[in-house]
Amino acid sequence: MDALKQAIRKQGRMMPGGIVKVDSFLNHRLDTGLMMEMGREIARRFAPSAPDLVLTVEASGIALAMATACALNGIPVVFAKKGIAANQSADMAEEKIYSFTHQCESFIRVDLRYIPRGSRVLIVDDFLANGKAVNGLMSIIRRAGAELVGVGIAIEKGFQPGGAKLREMGIPLLSLAVIDEITDAGIRFRDTDQEI
Amino acid sequence: MDALKQAIRKQGRMMPGGIVKVDSFLNHRLDTGLMMEMGREIARRFAPSAPDLVLTVEASGIALAMATACALNGIPVVFAKKGIAANQSADMAEEKIYSFTHQCESFIRVDLRYIPRGSRVLIVDDFLANGKAVNGLMSIIRRAGAELVGVGIAIEKGFQPGGAKLREMGIPLLSLAVIDEITDAGIRFRDTDQEI
Repeated sequence: MDALKQAIRKQGRMMPGGIVKVDSFLNHRLDTGLMMEMGREIARRFAPSAPDLVLTVEASGIALAMATACALNGIPVVFAKKGIAANQSADMAEEKIYSFTHQCESFIRVDLRYIPRGSRVLIVDDFLANGKAVNGLMSIIRRAGAELVGVGIAIEKGFQPGGAKLREMGIPLLSLAVIDEITDAGIRFRDTDQEI
Repeated sequence: MDALKQAIRKQGRMMPGGIVKVDSFLNHRLDTGLMMEMGREIARRFAPSAPDLVLTVEASGIALAMATACALNGIPVVFAKKGIAANQSADMAEEKIYSFTHQCESFIRVDLRYIPRGSRVLIVDDFLANGKAVNGLMSIIRRAGAELVGVGIAIEKGFQPGGAKLREMGIPLLSLAVIDEITDAGIRFRDTDQEI
């Protein structure tokens, strides 16, 4: 998606260790116009799969999930919470995930009452790197007895294995921008058929 | 706002200690249609103040902030992050706040580069109880040299002092639902002039 790639090139800040900071429009300050446009693109791709709800992880997935859900006629969003609940209940599904960005283990949890058995679930998140968050959400969908219809991502780090693994598994995946390489000279995006 | 009050009455779950859980539509599962409607109401009230950006706190403030910002012609959202940054920078403003819900101290922080000096800032959040989060955001706005134009809240707990303090200070405040009392018999909402 061109508008997103332009924003990454123009506003992304390169950090040591292959990290691009997109704080200025995606995960601290939000460019709401771009966010809604991204949501419409993900919605257009997955509307034929008729998702019943969008599942994401707090905090930086929420805005894109909202934008996508609005473009899908206002279906609900469920966002997984991080950390361990003070009051665990039988309805809570918890998964351990490892964050590449923060270099630590953490937990995500979802109240299974909000993922009805048999419902069609679209996962949306801001980043896909090693795919630990998406895998955690997929486990939760299985535990809920629901069905995954696809995964919509803003920025995939193509040099990390998360995206490739999902494609191998045959899971429909739309990444609005795939970064294949970050060098001193700049960012190289993948030329994909899924280009919009 | 009637639709919100109906959702609270119908879906809110009463917990011990004067806590209403609204997980099913406001802060775990999101009713995106209701959320956009709430954003439009807050936008309608504050559009005459011409805000340049919406400021909120992750995670549960983000959806309502997005909805409000979209209804204000797509102005940006900035969401304060919780916890302490791994890499503190000179641009980071940090404030200590106390959470009534979680009964603990925590920190919120904002990169001041995203709150331009002189900009007009609208604070939006899901809950107003003791007002600690809003006060923390107000301190950050002062440090940024920006101007607070008002505060838009989904649910104010009228039996806690946050809202009264803001009104005493003369800060324009719109709470879409003010809960004055929670008893075994149910929820009593305040009848306000600001009723929409």
